[in-house]
Amino acid sequence: MPAFILAEKYVKSRAPKVARPFEGLKLTACLHISKETSVLVNSLRDLGFEITLAAANPLSSQAEITAFLLSRGVVVLGRKGETTDEYQKDILRAARASPDLIIDDGGELHFAYASSGGQTCFGGTDETTTGTTRLRAMDLAGKLRYPVIPVNEAPTKHIFDNKYGTGQSSVDGLIRATGILVAGKTAVLAGYGWVGQGVAMRLRGMGAKIIVTEVNPVRALEAHLDGFAVLPMKEAVAVADIVLTCTGQTNVLSAAIFGHLKDGAIIGNLGHFDVEIDVKKLFDMGTRIEQMRPNVAKIELNGQPKKSVLLLCQGRVINLAAAEGHPPEIMQLSFANQLLSIHYLVVHRKELTRNKTKLLSFPAEIDSLVADLALKGFNLKIDRLSSIQSRYAHSA
Amino acid sequence: MPAFILAEKYVKSRAPKVARPFEGLKLTACLHISKETSVLVNSLRDLGFEITLAAANPLSSQAEITAFLLSRGVVVLGRKGETTDEYQKDILRAARASPDLIIDDGGELHFAYASSGGQTCFGGTDETTTGTTRLRAMDLAGKLRYPVIPVNEAPTKHIFDNKYGTGQSSVDGLIRATGILVAGKTAVLAGYGWVGQGVAMRLRGMGAKIIVTEVNPVRALEAHLDGFAVLPMKEAVAVADIVLTCTGQTNVLSAAIFGHLKDGAIIGNLGHFDVEIDVKKLFDMGTRIEQMRPNVAKIELNGQPKKSVLLLCQGRVINLAAAEGHPPEIMQLSFANQLLSIHYLVVHRKELTRNKTKLLSFPAEIDSLVADLALKGFNLKIDRLSSIQSRYAHSA
Amino acid sequence: MPAFILAEKYVKSRAPKVARPFEGLKLTACLHISKETSVLVNSLRDLGFEITLAAANPLSSQAEITAFLLSRGVVVLGRKGETTDEYQKDILRAARASPDLIIDDGGELHFAYASSGGQTCFGGTDETTTGTTRLRAMDLAGKLRYPVIPVNEAPTKHIFDNKYGTGQSSVDGLIRATGILVAGKTAVLAGYGWVGQGVAMRLRGMGAKIIVTEVNPVRALEAHLDGFAVLPMKEAVAVADIVLTCTGQTNVLSAAIFGHLKDGAIIGNLGHFDVEIDVKKLFDMGTRIEQMRPNVAKIELNGQPKKSVLLLCQGRVINLAAAEGHPPEIMQLSFANQLLSIHYLVVHRKELTRNKTKLLSFPAEIDSLVADLALKGFNLKIDRLSSIQSRYAHSA
Amino acid sequence: MPAFILAEKYVKSRAPKVARPFEGLKLTACLHISKETSVLVNSLRDLGFEITLAAANPLSSQAEITAFLLSRGVVVLGRKGETTDEYQKDILRAARASPDLIIDDGGELHFAYASSGGQTCFGGTDETTTGTTRLRAMDLAGKLRYPVIPVNEAPTKHIFDNKYGTGQSSVDGLIRATGILVAGKTAVLAGYGWVGQGVAMRLRGMGAKIIVTEVNPVRALEAHLDGFAVLPMKEAVAVADIVLTCTGQTNVLSAAIFGHLKDGAIIGNLGHFDVEIDVKKLFDMGTRIEQMRPNVAKIELNGQPKKSVLLLCQGRVINLAAAEGHPPEIMQLSFANQLLSIHYLVVHRKELTRNKTKLLSFPAEIDSLVADLALKGFNLKIDRLSSIQSRYAHSA
Repeated sequence: MPAFILAEKYVKSRAPKVARPFEGLKLTACLHISKETSVLVNSLRDLGFEITLAAANPLSSQAEITAFLLSRGVVVLGRKGETTDEYQKDILRAARASPDLIIDDGGELHFAYASSGGQTCFGGTDETTTGTTRLRAMDLAGKLRYPVIPVNEAPTKHIFDNKYGTGQSSVDGLIRATGILVAGKTAVLAGYGWVGQGVAMRLRGMGAKIIVTEVNPVRALEAHLDGFAVLPMKEAVAVADIVLTCTGQTNVLSAAIFGHLKDGAIIGNLGHFDVEIDVKKLFDMGTRIEQMRPNVAKIELNGQPKKSVLLLCQGRVINLAAAEGHPPEIMQLSFANQLLSIHYLVVHRKELTRNKTKLLSFPAEIDSLVADLALKGFNLKIDRLSSIQSRYAHSA
Repeated sequence: MPAFILAEKYVKSRAPKVARPFEGLKLTACLHISKETSVLVNSLRDLGFEITLAAANPLSSQAEITAFLLSRGVVVLGRKGETTDEYQKDILRAARASPDLIIDDGGELHFAYASSGGQTCFGGTDETTTGTTRLRAMDLAGKLRYPVIPVNEAPTKHIFDNKYGTGQSSVDGLIRATGILVAGKTAVLAGYGWVGQGVAMRLRGMGAKIIVTEVNPVRALEAHLDGFAVLPMKEAVAVADIVLTCTGQTNVLSAAIFGHLKDGAIIGNLGHFDVEIDVKKLFDMGTRIEQMRPNVAKIELNGQPKKSVLLLCQGRVINLAAAEGHPPEIMQLSFANQLLSIHYLVVHRKELTRNKTKLLSFPAEIDSLVADLALKGFNLKIDRLSSIQSRYAHSA
Repeated sequence: MPAFILAEKYVKSRAPKVARPFEGLKLTACLHISKETSVLVNSLRDLGFEITLAAANPLSSQAEITAFLLSRGVVVLGRKGETTDEYQKDILRAARASPDLIIDDGGELHFAYASSGGQTCFGGTDETTTGTTRLRAMDLAGKLRYPVIPVNEAPTKHIFDNKYGTGQSSVDGLIRATGILVAGKTAVLAGYGWVGQGVAMRLRGMGAKIIVTEVNPVRALEAHLDGFAVLPMKEAVAVADIVLTCTGQTNVLSAAIFGHLKDGAIIGNLGHFDVEIDVKKLFDMGTRIEQMRPNVAKIELNGQPKKSVLLLCQGRVINLAAAEGHPPEIMQLSFANQLLSIHYLVVHRKELTRNKTKLLSFPAEIDSLVADLALKGFNLKIDRLSSIQSRYAHSA
Repeated sequence: MPAFILAEKYVKSRAPKVARPFEGLKLTACLHISKETSVLVNSLRDLGFEITLAAANPLSSQAEITAFLLSRGVVVLGRKGETTDEYQKDILRAARASPDLIIDDGGELHFAYASSGGQTCFGGTDETTTGTTRLRAMDLAGKLRYPVIPVNEAPTKHIFDNKYGTGQSSVDGLIRATGILVAGKTAVLAGYGWVGQGVAMRLRGMGAKIIVTEVNPVRALEAHLDGFAVLPMKEAVAVADIVLTCTGQTNVLSAAIFGHLKDGAIIGNLGHFDVEIDVKKLFDMGTRIEQMRPNVAKIELNGQPKKSVLLLCQGRVINLAAAEGHPPEIMQLSFANQLLSIHYLVVHRKELTRNKTKLLSFPAEIDSLVADLALKGFNLKIDRLSSIQSRYAHSA
């Protein structure tokens, strides 16, 4: 049984006499309107919330999902094709809906709420790094008035998303996009964070030889002892059949690097933002551009001898653009974290008002609970500390 | 540079003064008319052959390929939608085209040629196991009059096709068909031949736990020492999330096994023929059938408790039905083997007439040459025996 | 070149005009007197410290090392065979040697110094978890008067020690102790912390099937997605050929578990303390005990049917007892961390007096520097952030 | 239960009414007198054979084993310290003992028997490649009068010995000899036969990066697609920390290569004979030689700059010289093959006299039986073909 369903059951089990434990509370959310998020929103609705939902990106809103949520009594703001100005207004309208709780994706709604002078909200979440960074700044400036849980900092979200989710789906996207045999290829991974570790593990599993490039010496040393080659980028790309960026940085494959690529090298991005490859520059440098397959552009570069580079997905994140993104088993962990964070904010409402720092550390007990539910969902059982062991742990 | 192109260059280099080394020779082939085989046929045409081509399966013929080959001067027999009777006549017409050489896919053309009493042919090839078996019987019965090279027995064809080609493309097909996270799943592989070994290696590389079932104790022991669990099928399927057959056998997943599958188990076939899962029986047993995704049928089975089985691709080979089959790097090896086998038959025409056994062992020198060309195509260099070492090898 | 030598060069390079940068400072240390630590002590002496050294465990002191250090002008306290009372007095004498800096292994010397009312010390280190725990308590109680760096918390120490050092040396110890073929064996790892992760990775690399037992659901989920089986201990040992503990906990293999082991199961401990297996109980339960090989005791247990358990190294940590402990490449990282921590305390003496919390977090810059030196020692180069990237990192 | 014990039980079960199935038959063997072979000889004695045993190498005979076998009624020829002349006489005496069956290790006894004009022997075995080569020559020359089974050609012997036995024990020997951390090291394997494949798999499992050198293009291509780097030797050693030979060839690391090694490179041999490294030349080239550890000689070579090479075990096979050779699980397979081959010769005595070729192919049924017994010994069960499947297999 999926972890998220178990999370929903868990929330209900904490208030067994109540049909809808969140009855009477208003929740305002700013989320991408997709099949995936509709699962979360629908569940929150079932659990009793009165919901106002602003589309985080109206362009990507799916009409049938919107229709479904409307039919469930959710107020949905934003429509495909609206102007940026209209979008801003929607966010503002959402912020002014007197929410008790706010779910956000990027910090925009929290910011709008603070600007609007709202007084009702007693807690919120955000699921992105960008949002967390923004909220930290708001907190330092004294502008955050209620506790916010940065869901992205849950190990069960970011480690599992990045290492296992992106790990698999990137290999999937690479193969779907190109059709190549991975075995025997030399693949450069720029970055050995969670994404890099996950993709390195999976590409090796498909028979590739991996070279890691890093700017962080501790990670470089880990990559080395994990059995991967470690090289500076210029030397790495000179022997690479495939180059994938997953650094979270900008301009990782830049004009200075393009010249060092081998003829026929495949380059692509696994990072969240499409800034890791300087795509604009690459197209500018191209003397001829040919779309080989739907997600493969062949760019001929001048030079002696001439050579071509195969750019995947225009530099956008491959696992979303050429495959199906995170597998459902991984999405479930995210949603469970979201739902249980909201539940945590409701249950601990009183204690949390005492916190000076409003941007919370992600509560370890939620993380642990999500992992527990996921294990249960996979039919896995684990041990518990014996009483002797609990004492030993506390005596150390 | 692809191995096949290098093979073509090699053939030309053996007769540097001749523009078209096979000029004046007639070749008749029975092949699937697809983009892939058109590469081989086109090359043979370029090298000088006068070619008659019968479609191995008119249903799968691709019109634009047929048009292309016609434009190159190839005589193409067979059209989409023809009756079996018409098809048989086409094979016969092809057999009667006075070929010097015959390329076949299943032994039908060789059989038709023998029946027709042809006297021109001095050599042939076949690229399937089925064909090889048939040709062996013909040879024993004294009905094979010219040397035939069983291309499927080339290690560079069947090992690389099965272990590395099917190894990758099966994982690819599984993920495209279902969208599941492979990591953490328990996958049963029925059969630990080349396909089983390849798929086991790749699924493990994606994070699955592998259980091998076998009827051959030596292979079972290898699987065990390669670190895979080994179990009888009934015990294996009872804990499996995924069950894949690659035995070359019939009825591997049969009614007797369906009852032992876990609820939600995914089952699929990686063998050449769709006989490994008793699909008919499974559908008969189903109380409800739902197509979940294009290649996933959910079949509800009666029982206490009720359970469902997810059947992939109707039991047809997953890597072709849900992915793109062998990657091009692997296809190249097959074509190079075909081309160089034909070349070998032409070059060794005289010596070969002396052979009593007409169905040859695959010549090791072709295999070695194909591997050499493939390495060259990958820009890899290897060593040669020194003269001291050659002497040592012969003195042992 | 070893990382430690590079660390020594680094320290000298920070004060290029001075022959002995620590000249005039007194350092008192409590350490195991072994070949390994003599390298550190000797280097500190070379760099100018006046050193008093108390043996952390006089029993394990090596006479030739003591002689060597004495010859270098180090004051060495403690002799083999001294009573506990004498040992305590030595620690006290060391504490009273008016140290400027203290290096400790377990917190005893820091405690003795505090009790003695010393006023000279301006900084210290400790390299154990036990010491860190003790020092934290002292700090909270206001009894720690100078900054202390917990060296064990350096990622380049504990991750690399545990994952890569213990990872390899445990497999080494297991094979040396027993002589068994690892391939095909089912091995249970109790605990999936750094040690468990490292050993799981290496045992799988030798062909074992791994089962992880855990009490921490997040780690259990990681083990699952890394492709390992996850089970409660009782179910795990029932199918295990080998059971290894690495939990940091007590009583992991207890009387309640012994009964579930398979006949012939090999059990051993990889944790720091020999409390993970209840060895006393096991010997009590044994009806017959036989020493099979130097580090393998066969213990027959009553029951229907009778069975035997093979206990490795009397329950003491296998990689030290049956192999050679951490490989030198890993020890170098520890020593480099120690030396650079002392250097840090000297260089930042002034700023650090302002810290309220005396037990410091391990300074990330030391960790990063050690990794840098290790990479240099392995002849590996990595990239640096470009100026565009530095700006991007700060703008997020 | 060990495979060999099960083989013994199997032999007894084929003649359930007879206490000692080989009663009345004489067997003469030439074997290394070690603990391992005594198990085989003792079992053959228990099963009824009258045995004469000549030491294959009197130097390595172990006195207590000789004493044990004498006490069991085995006639043992050869004593430590005898001259080559005496040794030859012992072989001759053994050959003249009117054996019914001969077990040999190198072909010497078979040769002596043929020269002696013996008429009693009706079958024999040999367990080495050298012996097999010699016996093939004898057979072609018409000098082999009885069927001989080449035990080394059993897949369950040579594949499992080489891939899994040598695979593990070589890594074991490397670590014991040097104490190095394998993780992160670059290791060159010269040769990708069974030994090379096994060692590559295990060294990768310990975190090494592998480079394969080969002279056989098919194997090179396999290594490439298994994800290993493939290079010519000169380029490979220039980046290698470790170089191991497993080619079966001579002079693989020769004077021409020594100059390309990195400073500090570790070199060793995994091949049967100590001819793969030109040790004599290396010592000649050394300007200074130092024994670092029992199995590590440091050899300084002239050049700009100076460099050292670390030679393991004087070029002798590492897994025997620095570790314990094949693990018992692997030895058991060899012995089971030997015993069942002898049994096969007795049972099929009549049919085998009809064979023209006296040097047999290894009978697949023995191989299959040994694998079956090994699986049973590991408590593993596998499936059998159903009757439908048997028919399908024969209809193909």
